[in-house]
Amino acid sequence: MRTVRTVKDLRRLRQHYTEGRETVALVPTMGALHEGHLSLVRQAKYRCQRVIVSLFVNPKQFSAGEDLDSYPRTYERDAQLLSELDVDVLYMPTRDEMYQAGASTTVNVVGVGEGLCQATRPDFFSGVATVVAKLLLQCLPDVAIFGEKDYQQLLVIKRMAQDLDIPVTIESGSTVRENDGLALSSRNAYLSEDERISAPHLYYALTQAQHRIHAGESISKVLWDSEQYLISVGFEAIDYFVYCDADTLAPCDRRLTNRPARFLAAAWLGKARLIDNIAA
Amino acid sequence: MRTVRTVKDLRRLRQHYTEGRETVALVPTMGALHEGHLSLVRQAKYRCQRVIVSLFVNPKQFSAGEDLDSYPRTYERDAQLLSELDVDVLYMPTRDEMYQAGASTTVNVVGVGEGLCQATRPDFFSGVATVVAKLLLQCLPDVAIFGEKDYQQLLVIKRMAQDLDIPVTIESGSTVRENDGLALSSRNAYLSEDERISAPHLYYALTQAQHRIHAGESISKVLWDSEQYLISVGFEAIDYFVYCDADTLAPCDRRLTNRPARFLAAAWLGKARLIDNIAA
Repeated sequence: MRTVRTVKDLRRLRQHYTEGRETVALVPTMGALHEGHLSLVRQAKYRCQRVIVSLFVNPKQFSAGEDLDSYPRTYERDAQLLSELDVDVLYMPTRDEMYQAGASTTVNVVGVGEGLCQATRPDFFSGVATVVAKLLLQCLPDVAIFGEKDYQQLLVIKRMAQDLDIPVTIESGSTVRENDGLALSSRNAYLSEDERISAPHLYYALTQAQHRIHAGESISKVLWDSEQYLISVGFEAIDYFVYCDADTLAPCDRRLTNRPARFLAAAWLGKARLIDNIAA
Repeated sequence: MRTVRTVKDLRRLRQHYTEGRETVALVPTMGALHEGHLSLVRQAKYRCQRVIVSLFVNPKQFSAGEDLDSYPRTYERDAQLLSELDVDVLYMPTRDEMYQAGASTTVNVVGVGEGLCQATRPDFFSGVATVVAKLLLQCLPDVAIFGEKDYQQLLVIKRMAQDLDIPVTIESGSTVRENDGLALSSRNAYLSEDERISAPHLYYALTQAQHRIHAGESISKVLWDSEQYLISVGFEAIDYFVYCDADTLAPCDRRLTNRPARFLAAAWLGKARLIDNIAA
Protein backbone atom coordinates (compact mmCIF):
# COMPACT_ATOMS: atom_id res chain seq x y z
CA MET A 1 0.00 0.00 0.00
CA ARG A 2 1.27 3.44 -0.93
CA THR A 3 0.53 6.47 1.21
CA VAL A 4 0.04 9.60 -0.90
CA ARG A 5 -0.34 13.16 0.37
CA THR A 6 -0.66 15.30 -2.76
CA VAL A 7 -3.11 15.54 -5.65
CA LYS A 8 -0.16 15.45 -8.04
CA ASP A 9 1.04 12.05 -6.81
CA LEU A 10 -2.53 10.76 -6.70
CA ARG A 11 -3.17 11.75 -10.33
CA ARG A 12 0.11 10.13 -11.40
CA LEU A 13 -0.91 6.82 -9.82
CA ARG A 14 -4.41 7.08 -11.26
CA GLN A 15 -3.00 7.65 -14.72
CA HIS A 16 -0.69 4.66 -14.30
CA TYR A 17 -3.70 2.50 -13.36
CA THR A 18 -5.96 3.69 -16.16
CA GLU A 19 -3.25 3.37 -18.79
CA GLY A 20 -3.13 -0.30 -17.85
CA ARG A 21 -6.94 -0.24 -18.26
CA GLU A 22 -7.44 -0.98 -14.59
CA THR A 23 -10.57 0.37 -12.94
CA VAL A 24 -10.32 2.45 -9.79
CA ALA A 25 -12.65 2.61 -6.76
CA LEU A 26 -12.54 5.28 -4.08
CA VAL A 27 -13.74 4.91 -0.47
CA PRO A 28 -13.70 8.33 1.22
CA THR A 29 -13.36 8.23 5.03
CA MET A 30 -12.53 10.46 7.98
CA GLY A 31 -10.46 7.63 9.52
CA ALA A 32 -11.13 6.00 12.92
CA LEU A 33 -11.93 3.00 10.77
CA HIS A 34 -14.30 0.29 11.91
CA GLU A 35 -15.86 -2.76 10.30
CA GLY A 36 -18.38 -0.51 8.48
CA HIS A 37 -15.55 1.18 6.57
CA LEU A 38 -13.78 -2.13 5.99
CA SER A 39 -16.93 -3.62 4.46
CA LEU A 40 -16.96 -0.69 1.97
CA VAL A 41 -13.32 -1.39 1.16
CA ARG A 42 -14.11 -5.06 0.47
CA GLN A 43 -16.98 -3.96 -1.77
CA ALA A 44 -14.58 -1.61 -3.59
CA LYS A 45 -12.08 -4.44 -4.14
CA TYR A 46 -14.85 -6.59 -5.53
CA ARG A 47 -15.92 -3.83 -7.95
CA CYS A 48 -12.57 -2.52 -9.23
CA GLN A 49 -9.01 -3.63 -9.73
CA ARG A 50 -7.50 -0.76 -7.75
CA VAL A 51 -8.75 0.72 -4.49
CA ILE A 52 -7.97 4.16 -3.09
CA VAL A 53 -9.07 4.96 0.47
CA SER A 54 -8.98 8.62 1.41
CA LEU A 55 -8.58 9.69 5.02
CA PHE A 56 -9.29 13.34 5.71
CA VAL A 57 -11.03 14.83 8.75
CA ASN A 58 -12.76 17.60 6.83
CA PRO A 59 -12.98 20.78 8.93
CA LYS A 60 -15.55 22.33 6.56
CA GLN A 61 -18.27 19.85 7.54
CA PHE A 62 -18.07 20.70 11.23
CA SER A 63 -19.96 23.73 12.53
CA ALA A 64 -18.61 25.88 15.37
CA GLY A 65 -18.94 24.01 18.69
CA GLU A 66 -18.98 20.58 17.05
CA ASP A 67 -16.45 17.80 17.66
CA LEU A 68 -13.77 18.61 15.07
CA ASP A 69 -10.95 18.67 17.64
CA SER A 70 -12.10 15.61 19.57
CA TYR A 71 -13.04 13.52 16.52
CA PRO A 72 -11.18 10.21 17.01
CA ARG A 73 -7.88 9.95 15.11
CA THR A 74 -6.26 6.52 14.89
CA TYR A 75 -4.02 6.93 11.84
CA GLU A 76 -1.53 4.13 12.57
CA ARG A 77 -4.20 1.56 13.25
CA ASP A 78 -6.16 2.73 10.17
CA ALA A 79 -3.12 2.31 7.93
CA GLN A 80 -2.51 -1.15 9.39
CA LEU A 81 -6.12 -2.27 8.74
CA LEU A 82 -6.09 -0.97 5.15
CA SER A 83 -2.74 -2.56 4.47
CA GLU A 84 -4.10 -5.93 5.67
CA LEU A 85 -6.95 -5.56 3.14
CA ASP A 86 -4.36 -4.95 0.42
CA VAL A 87 -5.64 -1.46 -0.44
CA ASP A 88 -3.53 0.11 -3.21
CA VAL A 89 -3.45 3.72 -2.10
CA LEU A 90 -4.07 5.48 1.20
CA TYR A 91 -4.65 9.12 0.30
CA MET A 92 -4.08 11.37 3.31
CA PRO A 93 -3.99 14.99 2.12
CA THR A 94 -2.98 17.72 4.53
CA ARG A 95 -5.49 20.54 5.17
CA ASP A 96 -3.35 22.88 3.03
CA GLU A 97 -3.34 20.39 0.16
CA MET A 98 -7.14 20.11 0.33
CA TYR A 99 -7.94 23.79 0.89
CA GLN A 100 -5.32 25.95 -0.76
CA ALA A 101 -4.85 29.59 0.19
CA GLY A 102 -7.65 31.69 -1.29
CA ALA A 103 -10.00 28.75 -1.89
CA SER A 104 -13.51 30.20 -1.95
CA THR A 105 -15.75 27.75 -3.83
CA THR A 106 -18.53 25.70 -2.26
CA VAL A 107 -20.93 23.14 -3.64
CA ASN A 108 -24.47 23.35 -2.28
CA VAL A 109 -27.33 20.90 -2.60
CA VAL A 110 -30.87 22.02 -1.80
CA GLY A 111 -33.76 19.56 -1.58
CA VAL A 112 -32.25 16.37 -0.11
CA GLY A 113 -29.57 18.55 1.53
CA GLU A 114 -32.14 20.51 3.56
CA GLY A 115 -33.87 19.57 6.81
CA LEU A 116 -33.04 16.54 9.02
CA CYS A 117 -29.29 16.73 9.81
CA GLN A 118 -28.98 20.10 8.07
CA ALA A 119 -31.45 21.64 10.53
CA THR A 120 -29.04 21.19 13.44
CA ARG A 121 -25.76 21.01 11.47
CA PRO A 122 -26.07 23.98 9.07
CA ASP A 123 -22.60 23.67 7.50
CA PHE A 124 -22.57 19.89 7.24
CA PHE A 125 -23.84 19.06 3.77
CA SER A 126 -22.20 22.00 2.05
CA GLY A 127 -18.93 20.86 3.64
CA VAL A 128 -19.57 17.25 2.61
CA ALA A 129 -20.66 18.08 -0.97
CA THR A 130 -17.64 20.33 -1.48
CA VAL A 131 -15.03 17.92 -0.12
CA VAL A 132 -16.54 14.89 -1.86
CA ALA A 133 -16.66 16.77 -5.19
CA LYS A 134 -12.98 17.58 -4.66
CA LEU A 135 -12.06 14.01 -3.69
CA LEU A 136 -13.89 12.61 -6.72
CA LEU A 137 -12.14 15.06 -9.04
CA GLN A 138 -8.75 14.52 -7.40
CA CYS A 139 -9.01 10.72 -7.69
CA LEU A 140 -11.25 10.45 -10.78
CA PRO A 141 -12.42 6.95 -9.75
CA ASP A 142 -14.79 4.78 -11.78
CA VAL A 143 -16.77 3.97 -8.63
CA ALA A 144 -17.03 5.65 -5.23
CA ILE A 145 -18.62 3.90 -2.28
CA PHE A 146 -20.42 5.43 0.72
CA GLY A 147 -22.18 3.85 3.71
CA GLU A 148 -25.96 3.75 4.01
CA LYS A 149 -25.63 4.59 7.70
CA ASP A 150 -25.24 8.24 6.65
CA TYR A 151 -28.32 8.03 4.45
CA GLN A 152 -29.02 11.72 3.88
CA GLN A 153 -25.33 12.26 3.10
CA LEU A 154 -25.50 9.41 0.58
CA LEU A 155 -28.44 11.07 -1.20
CA VAL A 156 -26.70 14.47 -1.17
CA ILE A 157 -23.58 12.93 -2.74
CA LYS A 158 -25.58 11.03 -5.39
CA ARG A 159 -27.47 14.20 -6.26
CA MET A 160 -24.30 16.29 -6.40
CA ALA A 161 -22.38 13.84 -8.58
CA GLN A 162 -25.31 13.54 -10.98
CA ASP A 163 -26.07 17.28 -11.09
CA LEU A 164 -22.43 18.26 -11.75
CA ASP A 165 -21.91 15.44 -14.28
CA ILE A 166 -18.97 14.01 -12.36
CA PRO A 167 -17.93 10.90 -14.33
CA VAL A 168 -18.32 8.37 -11.50
CA THR A 169 -20.77 5.74 -10.30
CA ILE A 170 -21.83 6.31 -6.68
CA GLU A 171 -22.57 3.07 -4.83
CA SER A 172 -23.72 2.43 -1.29
CA GLY A 173 -22.81 -0.22 1.25
CA SER A 174 -25.16 -1.63 3.90
CA THR A 175 -24.87 -0.50 7.51
CA VAL A 176 -22.76 -2.82 9.65
CA ARG A 177 -24.08 -3.33 13.19
CA GLU A 178 -22.88 -4.65 16.54
CA ASN A 179 -24.56 -7.87 17.69
CA ASP A 180 -27.07 -5.81 19.70
CA GLY A 181 -28.04 -3.74 16.63
CA LEU A 182 -26.05 -0.55 17.23
CA ALA A 183 -24.84 0.84 13.90
CA LEU A 184 -21.06 1.06 13.80
CA SER A 185 -19.84 4.66 13.95
CA SER A 186 -16.58 6.33 14.83
CA ARG A 187 -18.56 8.50 17.25
CA ASN A 188 -19.62 5.43 19.30
CA ALA A 189 -16.22 5.94 20.96
CA TYR A 190 -17.79 8.91 22.80
CA LEU A 191 -20.28 6.67 24.65
CA SER A 192 -19.84 5.96 28.37
CA GLU A 193 -20.49 2.41 29.59
CA ASP A 194 -24.10 3.28 30.55
CA GLU A 195 -24.73 5.16 27.31
CA ARG A 196 -23.40 2.19 25.35
CA ILE A 197 -26.13 0.07 26.97
CA SER A 198 -28.82 2.57 25.90
CA ALA A 199 -27.45 3.12 22.40
CA PRO A 200 -28.90 0.02 20.61
CA HIS A 201 -32.41 1.24 21.50
CA LEU A 202 -32.14 3.68 18.58
CA TYR A 203 -32.10 0.79 16.12
CA TYR A 204 -34.68 -1.08 18.18
CA ALA A 205 -37.02 1.94 18.02
CA LEU A 206 -36.60 2.09 14.23
CA THR A 207 -37.44 -1.60 13.79
CA GLN A 208 -40.43 -1.30 16.16
CA ALA A 209 -41.73 1.69 14.19
CA GLN A 210 -41.31 -0.31 10.99
CA HIS A 211 -43.39 -3.20 12.40
CA ARG A 212 -46.13 -0.93 13.73
CA ILE A 213 -46.51 0.99 10.45
CA HIS A 214 -46.62 -2.27 8.52
CA ALA A 215 -49.40 -3.29 10.92
CA GLY A 216 -51.35 -0.19 9.87
CA GLU A 217 -50.89 2.12 12.86
CA SER A 218 -51.00 5.89 12.45
CA ILE A 219 -47.66 7.31 11.39
CA SER A 220 -47.80 10.38 13.61
CA LYS A 221 -48.63 8.22 16.64
CA VAL A 222 -45.80 5.79 15.91
CA LEU A 223 -43.26 8.61 15.47
CA TRP A 224 -44.38 10.32 18.67
CA ASP A 225 -44.20 7.05 20.64
CA SER A 226 -40.76 6.33 19.22
CA GLU A 227 -39.40 9.65 20.45
CA GLN A 228 -40.96 9.12 23.90
CA TYR A 229 -39.48 5.63 24.00
CA LEU A 230 -35.99 6.92 23.24
CA ILE A 231 -36.25 9.54 25.99
CA SER A 232 -37.45 6.82 28.41
CA VAL A 233 -34.37 4.68 27.74
CA GLY A 234 -31.91 7.51 28.34
CA PHE A 235 -31.57 9.56 25.15
CA GLU A 236 -31.39 13.24 26.10
CA ALA A 237 -32.65 14.88 22.92
CA ILE A 238 -34.13 13.71 19.63
CA ASP A 239 -33.01 15.79 16.63
CA TYR A 240 -35.48 13.91 14.43
CA PHE A 241 -37.33 10.61 14.06
CA VAL A 242 -39.12 10.61 10.69
CA TYR A 243 -40.81 8.49 8.07
CA CYS A 244 -40.10 9.84 4.59
CA ASP A 245 -39.82 9.23 0.87
CA ALA A 246 -36.57 7.28 0.47
CA ASP A 247 -35.50 9.28 -2.60
CA THR A 248 -36.55 12.85 -1.82
CA LEU A 249 -36.56 12.65 2.03
CA ALA A 250 -39.91 14.48 1.97
CA PRO A 251 -41.72 13.59 5.25
CA CYS A 252 -44.88 11.52 4.76
CA ASP A 253 -47.90 11.38 7.06
CA ARG A 254 -49.36 8.38 5.23
CA ARG A 255 -47.77 5.08 4.40
CA LEU A 256 -46.16 5.17 0.94
CA THR A 257 -47.33 2.25 -1.15
CA ASN A 258 -45.99 3.04 -4.62
CA ARG A 259 -42.51 4.31 -3.73
CA PRO A 260 -39.79 3.28 -1.27
CA ALA A 261 -39.96 4.91 2.15
CA ARG A 262 -37.41 5.10 4.95
CA PHE A 263 -37.18 5.81 8.67
CA LEU A 264 -34.36 8.14 9.68
CA ALA A 265 -33.42 9.15 13.21
CA ALA A 266 -30.83 11.26 15.02
CA ALA A 267 -30.63 11.46 18.80
CA TRP A 268 -28.20 12.44 21.55
CA LEU A 269 -26.64 10.26 24.26
CA GLY A 270 -24.20 12.39 26.29
CA LYS A 271 -21.59 13.78 23.90
CA ALA A 272 -22.56 11.37 21.11
CA ARG A 273 -25.04 12.30 18.41
CA LEU A 274 -26.13 8.95 16.97
CA ILE A 275 -27.86 8.57 13.62
CA ASP A 276 -29.43 5.51 12.04
CA ASN A 277 -31.99 4.59 9.38
CA ILE A 278 -33.81 1.60 7.93
CA ALA A 279 -35.99 0.87 4.93
CA ALA A 280 -39.65 1.29 5.86
CA MET B 1 -18.16 18.97 -37.71
CA ARG B 2 -20.47 16.83 -35.64
CA THR B 3 -23.36 18.31 -33.74
CA VAL B 4 -23.98 16.54 -30.44
CA ARG B 5 -26.89 17.05 -28.06
CA THR B 6 -26.30 14.60 -25.20
CA VAL B 7 -23.63 14.07 -22.57
CA LYS B 8 -23.52 10.40 -23.53
CA ASP B 9 -22.57 11.12 -27.15
CA LEU B 10 -20.13 13.79 -26.03
CA ARG B 11 -18.35 11.39 -23.68
CA ARG B 12 -18.17 8.73 -26.38
CA LEU B 13 -16.46 11.15 -28.77
CA ARG B 14 -14.15 12.39 -26.04
CA GLN B 15 -13.14 8.82 -25.21
CA HIS B 16 -12.47 8.15 -28.89
CA TYR B 17 -10.21 11.22 -29.03
CA THR B 18 -8.31 10.46 -25.85
CA GLU B 19 -7.79 6.81 -26.75
CA GLY B 20 -6.00 8.11 -29.82
CA ARG B 21 -4.02 10.28 -27.38
CA GLU B 22 -5.44 13.41 -28.93
CA THR B 23 -5.84 16.45 -26.69
CA VAL B 24 -9.19 18.21 -26.42
CA ALA B 25 -9.98 21.91 -26.00
CA LEU B 26 -13.37 23.33 -25.07
CA VAL B 27 -14.68 26.81 -25.91
CA PRO B 28 -17.97 27.40 -24.03
CA THR B 29 -20.29 29.96 -25.63
CA MET B 30 -23.88 31.15 -25.54
CA GLY B 31 -23.89 31.42 -29.33
CA ALA B 32 -24.52 34.64 -31.31
CA LEU B 33 -20.90 34.15 -32.29
CA HIS B 34 -18.65 37.06 -33.27
CA GLU B 35 -14.98 37.45 -33.99
CA GLY B 36 -14.22 37.38 -30.25
CA HIS B 37 -15.54 33.81 -30.02
CA LEU B 38 -13.84 32.82 -33.25
CA SER B 39 -10.48 34.06 -31.95
CA LEU B 40 -10.94 31.74 -28.94
CA VAL B 41 -11.70 28.86 -31.30
CA ARG B 42 -8.50 29.55 -33.26
CA GLN B 43 -6.57 29.62 -29.98
CA ALA B 44 -8.18 26.28 -29.06
CA LYS B 45 -7.15 24.74 -32.38
CA TYR B 46 -3.60 25.94 -31.83
CA ARG B 47 -3.50 24.39 -28.33
CA CYS B 48 -5.19 21.01 -28.91
CA GLN B 49 -5.82 18.47 -31.64
CA ARG B 50 -9.58 18.42 -31.14
CA VAL B 51 -11.89 21.34 -30.46
CA ILE B 52 -15.35 21.22 -28.92
CA VAL B 53 -17.46 24.40 -28.94
CA SER B 54 -20.48 24.36 -26.65
CA LEU B 55 -23.48 26.52 -27.38
CA PHE B 56 -25.98 26.84 -24.54
CA VAL B 57 -27.92 29.93 -23.49
CA ASN B 58 -27.82 29.16 -19.78
CA PRO B 59 -31.05 30.26 -18.07
CA LYS B 60 -29.47 29.95 -14.59
CA GLN B 61 -27.15 32.89 -15.15
CA PHE B 62 -29.98 35.31 -15.95
CA SER B 63 -31.84 36.95 -13.07
CA ALA B 64 -35.57 37.74 -13.29
CA GLY B 65 -36.13 40.70 -15.61
CA GLU B 66 -32.87 40.18 -17.52
CA ASP B 67 -32.59 39.46 -21.24
CA LEU B 68 -32.85 35.65 -21.32
CA ASP B 69 -35.70 35.65 -23.83
CA SER B 70 -34.30 38.38 -26.07
CA TYR B 71 -30.68 37.16 -25.98
CA PRO B 72 -29.66 36.88 -29.66
CA ARG B 73 -29.91 33.38 -31.13
CA THR B 74 -28.28 32.77 -34.52
CA TYR B 75 -27.80 29.00 -34.49
CA GLU B 76 -27.53 28.39 -38.21
CA ARG B 77 -25.00 31.13 -38.76
CA ASP B 78 -23.05 29.96 -35.65
CA ALA B 79 -22.87 26.39 -36.99
CA GLN B 80 -21.72 27.68 -40.38
CA LEU B 81 -18.94 29.81 -38.83
CA LEU B 82 -17.69 26.93 -36.66
CA SER B 83 -17.80 24.52 -39.55
CA GLU B 84 -15.65 26.89 -41.60
CA LEU B 85 -13.08 26.88 -38.78
CA ASP B 86 -13.07 23.07 -38.88
CA VAL B 87 -14.29 22.65 -35.30
CA ASP B 88 -14.67 18.95 -34.44
CA VAL B 89 -17.76 19.05 -32.24
CA LEU B 90 -20.56 21.54 -31.76
CA TYR B 91 -22.17 20.60 -28.43
CA MET B 92 -25.70 21.99 -28.20
CA PRO B 93 -27.43 20.40 -25.19
CA THR B 94 -31.12 21.00 -24.63
CA ARG B 95 -32.19 22.61 -21.35
CA ASP B 96 -33.46 19.22 -20.14
CA GLU B 97 -30.14 17.57 -20.95
CA MET B 98 -28.28 20.24 -19.01
CA TYR B 99 -30.65 20.51 -16.03
CA GLN B 100 -32.33 17.18 -15.42
CA ALA B 101 -35.51 16.90 -13.37
CA GLY B 102 -34.72 17.30 -9.68
CA ALA B 103 -31.34 18.94 -10.23
CA SER B 104 -30.62 20.95 -7.08
CA THR B 105 -26.86 21.51 -6.89
CA THR B 106 -25.14 24.87 -7.30
CA VAL B 107 -21.49 25.92 -7.28
CA ASN B 108 -20.79 29.19 -5.52
CA VAL B 109 -17.64 31.30 -5.51
CA VAL B 110 -17.21 34.00 -2.88
CA GLY B 111 -14.36 36.54 -3.05
CA VAL B 112 -13.82 37.19 -6.77
CA GLY B 113 -17.47 36.22 -7.34
CA GLU B 114 -18.75 39.04 -5.11
CA GLY B 115 -19.24 42.72 -5.93
CA LEU B 116 -18.94 44.34 -9.39
CA CYS B 117 -21.27 42.41 -11.74
CA GLN B 118 -22.63 40.31 -8.86
CA ALA B 119 -23.93 43.46 -7.14
CA THR B 120 -26.47 44.06 -9.91
CA ARG B 121 -26.73 40.50 -11.28
CA PRO B 122 -27.14 38.42 -8.09
CA ASP B 123 -27.60 35.03 -9.80
CA PHE B 124 -25.00 35.51 -12.49
CA PHE B 125 -21.81 33.98 -11.14
CA SER B 126 -23.50 31.10 -9.35
CA GLY B 127 -25.21 30.31 -12.66
CA VAL B 128 -21.93 30.63 -14.55
CA ALA B 129 -19.87 28.61 -12.06
CA THR B 130 -22.46 25.82 -12.02
CA VAL B 131 -22.89 25.53 -15.78
CA VAL B 132 -19.16 25.81 -16.49
CA ALA B 133 -18.39 23.12 -13.88
CA LYS B 134 -20.95 20.93 -15.65
CA LEU B 135 -19.59 21.69 -19.13
CA LEU B 136 -16.04 20.96 -18.00
CA LEU B 137 -17.11 17.64 -16.44
CA GLN B 138 -19.29 16.71 -19.41
CA CYS B 139 -16.48 17.36 -21.91
CA LEU B 140 -13.44 16.65 -19.71
CA PRO B 141 -11.21 18.81 -21.93
CA ASP B 142 -7.48 19.28 -21.40
CA VAL B 143 -7.85 23.03 -21.94
CA ALA B 144 -10.85 25.37 -21.75
CA ILE B 145 -10.68 28.90 -23.13
CA PHE B 146 -12.61 31.99 -22.01
CA GLY B 147 -12.50 35.61 -23.15
CA GLU B 148 -10.86 38.36 -21.10
CA LYS B 149 -13.74 40.66 -21.99
CA ASP B 150 -15.70 38.99 -19.19
CA TYR B 151 -12.85 39.45 -16.77
CA GLN B 152 -14.62 38.82 -13.46
CA GLN B 153 -16.24 35.72 -14.98
CA LEU B 154 -12.79 34.51 -16.06
CA LEU B 155 -11.47 34.85 -12.50
CA VAL B 156 -14.55 33.10 -11.07
CA ILE B 157 -14.06 30.19 -13.47
CA LYS B 158 -10.32 29.92 -12.75
CA ARG B 159 -11.02 29.97 -9.02
CA MET B 160 -13.80 27.38 -9.31
CA ALA B 161 -11.78 24.98 -11.46
CA GLN B 162 -8.80 25.21 -9.12
CA ASP B 163 -10.86 24.94 -5.91
CA LEU B 164 -12.81 21.89 -7.11
CA ASP B 165 -9.69 20.21 -8.58
CA ILE B 166 -11.26 19.93 -12.02
CA PRO B 167 -8.53 18.39 -14.20
CA VAL B 168 -8.34 21.17 -16.80
CA THR B 169 -6.17 24.14 -17.72
CA ILE B 170 -8.19 27.36 -17.94
CA GLU B 171 -6.78 29.79 -20.50
CA SER B 172 -7.90 33.25 -21.54
CA GLY B 173 -8.08 34.99 -24.90
CA SER B 174 -7.61 38.73 -25.47
CA THR B 175 -10.61 40.94 -26.07
CA VAL B 176 -11.32 41.55 -29.75
CA ARG B 177 -12.46 45.10 -30.58
CA GLU B 178 -14.11 46.99 -33.41
CA ASN B 179 -11.88 49.51 -35.16
CA ASP B 180 -13.27 52.25 -32.91
CA GLY B 181 -12.37 50.30 -29.74
CA LEU B 182 -15.75 48.83 -28.82
CA ALA B 183 -15.28 45.35 -27.35
CA LEU B 184 -17.14 42.73 -29.38
CA SER B 185 -20.16 41.39 -27.53
CA SER B 186 -23.31 39.57 -28.55
CA ARG B 187 -25.22 42.26 -26.64
CA ASN B 188 -23.92 45.00 -28.97
CA ALA B 189 -26.82 43.87 -31.18
CA TYR B 190 -29.14 45.71 -28.74
CA LEU B 191 -27.57 49.11 -29.54
CA SER B 192 -29.49 51.66 -31.62
CA GLU B 193 -27.58 53.63 -34.24
CA ASP B 194 -27.02 56.54 -31.84
CA GLU B 195 -26.06 54.26 -28.97
CA ARG B 196 -23.57 52.49 -31.21
CA ILE B 197 -21.85 55.86 -31.71
CA SER B 198 -21.61 56.41 -27.95
CA ALA B 199 -20.57 52.83 -27.11
CA PRO B 200 -16.79 53.07 -27.89
CA HIS B 201 -16.48 55.79 -25.26
CA LEU B 202 -16.50 53.04 -22.62
CA TYR B 203 -13.15 51.76 -23.89
CA TYR B 204 -11.92 55.31 -24.44
CA ALA B 205 -12.75 56.20 -20.82
CA LEU B 206 -10.82 53.11 -19.63
CA THR B 207 -7.72 54.03 -21.66
CA GLN B 208 -7.91 57.66 -20.51
CA ALA B 209 -8.14 56.54 -16.89
CA GLN B 210 -5.12 54.32 -17.46
CA HIS B 211 -3.06 57.23 -18.84
CA ARG B 212 -4.06 59.57 -16.03
CA ILE B 213 -3.23 57.10 -13.28
CA HIS B 214 0.12 56.35 -14.90
CA ALA B 215 0.70 60.13 -14.84
CA GLY B 216 0.20 60.08 -11.08
CA GLU B 217 -3.32 61.52 -10.72
CA SER B 218 -5.52 60.64 -7.77
CA ILE B 219 -7.40 57.39 -8.33
CA SER B 220 -10.67 58.53 -6.79
CA LYS B 221 -10.61 61.72 -8.93
CA VAL B 222 -9.91 59.74 -12.12
CA LEU B 223 -12.71 57.23 -11.40
CA TRP B 224 -15.18 60.00 -10.62
CA ASP B 225 -14.27 61.90 -13.79
CA SER B 226 -14.59 58.73 -15.85
CA GLU B 227 -18.15 58.14 -14.66
CA GLN B 228 -19.06 61.76 -15.32
CA TYR B 229 -17.54 61.49 -18.78
CA LEU B 230 -19.57 58.39 -19.63
CA ILE B 231 -22.78 60.09 -18.53
CA SER B 232 -21.85 63.14 -20.66
CA VAL B 233 -21.49 61.02 -23.81
CA GLY B 234 -24.86 59.33 -23.37
CA PHE B 235 -24.50 56.38 -20.97
CA GLU B 236 -27.57 56.28 -18.75
CA ALA B 237 -26.20 54.50 -15.69
CA ILE B 238 -22.81 53.31 -14.53
CA ASP B 239 -22.93 50.01 -12.61
CA TYR B 240 -19.24 50.38 -11.74
CA PHE B 241 -15.97 51.92 -12.92
CA VAL B 242 -13.18 50.64 -10.70
CA TYR B 243 -9.44 50.24 -10.33
CA CYS B 244 -8.63 46.99 -8.55
CA ASP B 245 -6.16 44.20 -7.87
CA ALA B 246 -6.16 42.13 -11.06
CA ASP B 247 -6.16 38.82 -9.16
CA THR B 248 -8.49 39.43 -6.21
CA LEU B 249 -10.61 42.27 -7.69
CA ALA B 250 -10.22 44.10 -4.37
CA PRO B 251 -10.71 47.85 -5.10
CA CYS B 252 -7.58 49.95 -4.57
CA ASP B 253 -7.42 53.64 -3.70
CA ARG B 254 -3.68 53.83 -4.39
CA ARG B 255 -1.77 52.77 -7.43
CA LEU B 256 -0.54 49.17 -7.11
CA THR B 257 3.18 48.97 -7.82
CA ASN B 258 4.06 45.41 -6.83
CA ARG B 259 1.07 43.55 -8.26
CA PRO B 260 -0.98 43.73 -11.47
CA ALA B 261 -4.01 46.03 -11.38
CA ARG B 262 -6.95 46.36 -13.71
CA PHE B 263 -9.70 48.78 -14.63
CA LEU B 264 -13.17 47.23 -14.95
CA ALA B 265 -16.35 48.99 -16.00
CA ALA B 266 -20.03 48.22 -16.63
CA ALA B 267 -22.47 50.81 -17.93
CA TRP B 268 -25.85 51.03 -19.61
CA LEU B 269 -26.74 52.35 -23.04
CA GLY B 270 -30.45 51.83 -23.66
CA LYS B 271 -31.20 48.12 -23.32
CA ALA B 272 -27.53 47.16 -23.53
CA ARG B 273 -25.39 46.68 -20.46
CA LEU B 274 -21.83 46.95 -21.74
CA ILE B 275 -18.80 45.71 -19.83
CA ASP B 276 -15.13 46.14 -20.58
CA ASN B 277 -11.77 46.08 -18.82
CA ILE B 278 -8.07 46.79 -19.42
CA ALA B 279 -4.81 46.16 -17.62
CA ALA B 280 -3.92 49.19 -15.49
